[in-house]
Amino acid sequence: MQISIVGEAGPTPEIAALAEEVGAELGRRGITLVCGGGQGVMEAACRGAKSQGGTTIGILPGSDLSAANDWVDVTIPTGLGQARNVIIARSGSAAIAIGGRYGTLTEIGHALKAGIPVVGLRTWTLSKSGAVDPSIIVATDAKDAVEKAVSVAERPRPTDISND
Amino acid sequence: MQISIVGEAGPTPEIAALAEEVGAELGRRGITLVCGGGQGVMEAACRGAKSQGGTTIGILPGSDLSAANDWVDVTIPTGLGQARNVIIARSGSAAIAIGGRYGTLTEIGHALKAGIPVVGLRTWTLSKSGAVDPSIIVATDAKDAVEKAVSVAERPRPTDISND
Amino acid sequence: MQISIVGEAGPTPEIAALAEEVGAELGRRGITLVCGGGQGVMEAACRGAKSQGGTTIGILPGSDLSAANDWVDVTIPTGLGQARNVIIARSGSAAIAIGGRYGTLTEIGHALKAGIPVVGLRTWTLSKSGAVDPSIIVATDAKDAVEKAVSVAERPRPTDISND
Amino acid sequence: MQISIVGEAGPTPEIAALAEEVGAELGRRGITLVCGGGQGVMEAACRGAKSQGGTTIGILPGSDLSAANDWVDVTIPTGLGQARNVIIARSGSAAIAIGGRYGTLTEIGHALKAGIPVVGLRTWTLSKSGAVDPSIIVATDAKDAVEKAVSVAERPRPTDISND
Repeated sequence: MQISIVGEAGPTPEIAALAEEVGAELGRRGITLVCGGGQGVMEAACRGAKSQGGTTIGILPGSDLSAANDWVDVTIPTGLGQARNVIIARSGSAAIAIGGRYGTLTEIGHALKAGIPVVGLRTWTLSKSGAVDPSIIVATDAKDAVEKAVSVAERPRPTDISND
Repeated sequence: MQISIVGEAGPTPEIAALAEEVGAELGRRGITLVCGGGQGVMEAACRGAKSQGGTTIGILPGSDLSAANDWVDVTIPTGLGQARNVIIARSGSAAIAIGGRYGTLTEIGHALKAGIPVVGLRTWTLSKSGAVDPSIIVATDAKDAVEKAVSVAERPRPTDISND
Repeated sequence: MQISIVGEAGPTPEIAALAEEVGAELGRRGITLVCGGGQGVMEAACRGAKSQGGTTIGILPGSDLSAANDWVDVTIPTGLGQARNVIIARSGSAAIAIGGRYGTLTEIGHALKAGIPVVGLRTWTLSKSGAVDPSIIVATDAKDAVEKAVSVAERPRPTDISND
Repeated sequence: MQISIVGEAGPTPEIAALAEEVGAELGRRGITLVCGGGQGVMEAACRGAKSQGGTTIGILPGSDLSAANDWVDVTIPTGLGQARNVIIARSGSAAIAIGGRYGTLTEIGHALKAGIPVVGLRTWTLSKSGAVDPSIIVATDAKDAVEKAVSVAERPRPTDISND
């Protein structure tokens, strides 16, 4: 199983600690972690995963194979800039959003658009006409986030999602 | 000047009417409209722009030159699926979001990430930790949306925005 | 009708002159020219098109709306780097390759892969197992290139081309 | 080390056998194989790699996590169509092209454009003005291809390659 971790490059220490715990929990369960391969939430999550013997994939915005953080096993230097966020969002059976700014917002949107469940830890709340959109599954801590992500990842994906 | 219009393919009649008015106002001002080239908000906005002699660009998710709506002047069939949302978001000096679902959410996020101002008409509200993010400039009607978009589009762009 | 022009950023004066003539011939015929929006062959072709009142589209690798050459009417700043070559190749009913290096080679490949005819002016010759691939339609001068491109562009596109 | 394998989805049995040997040789050396994750050359190379305990990455054109061949360890479902070829080309320290049609041609072009060395096994020959371009390093068999790829992959990458 692959699960995507999305979050900001410049998190608070508290958010980084959450990311590390999420990564560790994925590693413990033998789930491959896919992320943007950079700093902050991405680095902390990869470090956590590797501490438990997990596998980590970094899908970089730039073209330089050597730009990944030190805990990335497989580096995909896309050269696509922010368009690589679409790929991260689609590369898991579920996505976990931890904190995050506008890049993370796009990853949440791309996952939801593709019918991929999103679990949120201290991330964006989306609302329209005053009503909160219930699509982001709110988690209370790292373990809860991974449990919820695994649970929804095992559901069959919707089959009528187009890429248009 | 180029301004991007982002919004959903299946809008209510009220949202579609707003989109048509926004397009007409852009056409009247000689501003080139960039959008996803499809149906719904995109089609209504293009129809409005063409009714006033404007120019319209459709950046399609698919590969078929003939899939654009009837009011698109220049068709860019990207074949990139939802990754083309990044291009739409970046192709204007400002973006106007009208209604919208998850695809529109990604376009709002990609514009804000790139430092491009976003004006919203009955679109998403973003919040974190209970506080509304003030980045989306709320407009009350079509004319107000175009006026606000033109006003912010004329400001110098931030120069320190990376594509990472 | 839209036709793509692909070629190198640093051409010889002879190649640049050919590109300018090709652009002028497209402009004269009212065909929209799509290209990478940059320097060299792209700039010369756009200048030629504008000298005859044509319309030009520049699909840039970077994110900066102001990076296009001075003869681009509509700028699409993709931020995708070289992946934008796919979009250029697919945005015409035919492509004309003028000179060119490896970027141009990718555009020729992407067009042929998508079933879009390619006309070549002093560009790459492709061969396998000692046999020249006949897919690139060789032209002798600018006028011949445009005539051949228009002629093949009017043929129905193959319908069984996948994007996979 | 990561090395990319590019080649066609519908190869002759001879080409598929070469791909399997190349994959096996990479697996034996502990080199991670990156490819398009599909059938033909991609599947044969992955099968070869897995037979020797190697690691395989499949960067798919579509959006479906389950579309990879049976020997892919990590699946990246990009949804980008042929634009994903750029990512494959850039994800190795060298690329080995085995047979191939137009998709492979684009991957060769994207690698060379990025300054990534390409080793060819019964693949395209590129020429301009009657002169063969020497950039593709011709290999005689699978073992020779891997040896040449490893040898060039260890050279420092050019630092002045832009993504424009």
